[in-house]
Amino acid sequence: MAPKKQFSPVKSLYHRGIDETGDVYDLRIINAEKSEFNEDQAACGKLCIQRCEFGIEEEWLTVCPEEFLTGHYWALFDGHGGPAAAILAANTLHSCLRRQLEAVVDGLLATQPPMHLSGRCVCSSDPQFVKEKGIRAEDLVIGALENAFQECDDVIGRELEASGQVGGCTALVAVSLQGKLYVANAGDSRAILVRRDEIRVLSSEFTPETERQRIQQLAFIYPELLAGEFTRLEFPRRLKGDDLGQKVLFRDHHMNGWSYKQVEKSDLKYPLIHGQGRQARLLGTLAVSRGLGDHQLRVLDTNIQLKPFLLSIPQVTVLDMDQLALQEEDVVVMATDGLWDVLSNEQVARLVRSFLTGNREDPHRFSELAKVLIHNTQGKDDGANGEGQVSYDDVSVFVIPLHSPGQGSGGH
Amino acid sequence: MAPKKQFSPVKSLYHRGIDETGDVYDLRIINAEKSEFNEDQAACGKLCIQRCEFGIEEEWLTVCPEEFLTGHYWALFDGHGGPAAAILAANTLHSCLRRQLEAVVDGLLATQPPMHLSGRCVCSSDPQFVKEKGIRAEDLVIGALENAFQECDDVIGRELEASGQVGGCTALVAVSLQGKLYVANAGDSRAILVRRDEIRVLSSEFTPETERQRIQQLAFIYPELLAGEFTRLEFPRRLKGDDLGQKVLFRDHHMNGWSYKQVEKSDLKYPLIHGQGRQARLLGTLAVSRGLGDHQLRVLDTNIQLKPFLLSIPQVTVLDMDQLALQEEDVVVMATDGLWDVLSNEQVARLVRSFLTGNREDPHRFSELAKVLIHNTQGKDDGANGEGQVSYDDVSVFVIPLHSPGQGSGGH
Repeated sequence: MAPKKQFSPVKSLYHRGIDETGDVYDLRIINAEKSEFNEDQAACGKLCIQRCEFGIEEEWLTVCPEEFLTGHYWALFDGHGGPAAAILAANTLHSCLRRQLEAVVDGLLATQPPMHLSGRCVCSSDPQFVKEKGIRAEDLVIGALENAFQECDDVIGRELEASGQVGGCTALVAVSLQGKLYVANAGDSRAILVRRDEIRVLSSEFTPETERQRIQQLAFIYPELLAGEFTRLEFPRRLKGDDLGQKVLFRDHHMNGWSYKQVEKSDLKYPLIHGQGRQARLLGTLAVSRGLGDHQLRVLDTNIQLKPFLLSIPQVTVLDMDQLALQEEDVVVMATDGLWDVLSNEQVARLVRSFLTGNREDPHRFSELAKVLIHNTQGKDDGANGEGQVSYDDVSVFVIPLHSPGQGSGGH
Repeated sequence: MAPKKQFSPVKSLYHRGIDETGDVYDLRIINAEKSEFNEDQAACGKLCIQRCEFGIEEEWLTVCPEEFLTGHYWALFDGHGGPAAAILAANTLHSCLRRQLEAVVDGLLATQPPMHLSGRCVCSSDPQFVKEKGIRAEDLVIGALENAFQECDDVIGRELEASGQVGGCTALVAVSLQGKLYVANAGDSRAILVRRDEIRVLSSEFTPETERQRIQQLAFIYPELLAGEFTRLEFPRRLKGDDLGQKVLFRDHHMNGWSYKQVEKSDLKYPLIHGQGRQARLLGTLAVSRGLGDHQLRVLDTNIQLKPFLLSIPQVTVLDMDQLALQEEDVVVMATDGLWDVLSNEQVARLVRSFLTGNREDPHRFSELAKVLIHNTQGKDDGANGEGQVSYDDVSVFVIPLHSPGQGSGGH
């Protein structure tokens, strides 16, 4: 059985490492004492994929009860409207992912996934069709992550409804499997790779601003979603009576550029997407445009639902660790927006490099580094590296050392 | 008045240059004699933007009848289902663009476009709002191009219906204005910048394959668009009876990766997007997913319309020519898919560089280069540069030398 006990929702500040034998060592949990009510949640552990087969009666049969393929899993969930969705996600998403991966494990192990999972060749040119589409084993992991997010979102929707709870959360997941690191993101957390001479961004943020065109497009197709209360159009600021009849800057769903339009009364409504940067809100309510949960969320005092505008689909990026000639101090830093609001990628990279270089002998240096990053968001910095800025949001950080004999060995 | 006479639909093979005074010289039109019925069309010329003002009675008044801002315009249209849409586009799009630019010309000339086109400041922090959104003059040109494509598509729809004609076309447009080159693309033509040490791709192709997720998403939201005749899902090949009950590779609208699903009867329907590479078709009918026209186009023997799946919105890229330290032999090559089907970007760049280096004294070398590129698609190559491949499609090419004293000077 997969070691479910290794997955637990934890609070506040996270670090996780893999020791030299490739085993997960204890989660270090440090409460940053920022808030009594922490909406960030996390989970991590070994991901043990069993081999299953599609048997008679349309049932999946476990044919190899032993671990068949082993990976590692790290996940951060930043909740809003309470911690319920984030807790459910921390308890559920890894199981969804394991199930999705087990459903395709035979395809994962082939050099090229077969057209038919059974390996049966219905058409002699099937391998050629798969090759022409460029389908590789890693596409099955990407698909499994995409489907796992969807499945987890459905579970959260049902569980919240059944228990009368509400809320939603972002989700940032890293999975190391067969020498590759997969980073799946839905929301505004971020993962970056920091090496001696390189910073590589492994995720994009999904906010009302970054997904403006998708959101406006949906409101264009289904104007009833706005119930006549919001305007789909974007203006540099909210318009007022004095603007009526003037030609002002605007853009609609089909535009990356800007144009001018003559202001009509309907343009004075509250904008579908309003505010700038960290203040940008979808329907005046949400700061993110992707994530899990929020099935019941409505605009205050209205019947307008947020969910149609939210996607539970992650964007997945793949890092081929075997191609990287990894050094001992190459790490992935995963963190919720509380960190990135006050520290740039470059500032984090500077902190990572100077700390790791100065603490080569410390066996707990990766845990300590996570602590250092958090402390740099609390205004406790001496100014040498960070800016001494203060984050008033929850902050969660994973530091994942990539160079490890056990890392990504996977195998079966 | 804008020199409309300079715009004319032309056939087969194009070249255009700017002479040392910055004036457009005669279009060289060479009929490649490939087909009697050429669906490619083109237009190019000076773009003369007048200064207009929003006057009383909601009318635009021309306050400066002289040329106010001057640019250059090149456009290629690759028609399908007859040349009607391409001819209309070649006759119309530049006028739509001129109108769109004239409507925002005061914003174009400001360092930062004002919130109100009139310059009136309703709210003292308006300049700050515009600055925070990062709106620059070039965003108004991008917006004008996006709106011009939409407007032109509407005109084509009305004209085709009124005249009982049918058809559609791709559109690739380059505009040089105020030191920048704007490339707007809707379809599968391509523009690249070729310099001594650099190839820069200035457009992306929009085909059923590159826009799979957008197209599947629409079919997911509006299943009735497929009238029960097509399956939204993608499989490596069209499924058949023998596949029923098997688990086969597939992907749906939310997936970049792949997974397996058990084949049901509805999966045996013809796929929404079918075929590979140049053979990929939308609803078994169209090889492109963006362009102008096609308002009446239906799947053969059905009532299923193509238009809801097609976008007339271009993607616009901006090349800041002032930042490039342009050399005399830096050119942009714009061509319809007939060229790119048989020559890679690298092959085209090799042909460009070797031809221009070997013909430094020829005053017509850019025209000759366009001819050379076309001839390299006709199997007439000696093998030194091209592959001697043959394009059976119409081929149209513009070679635009960027380094010219007159180029991009614009001004007013």
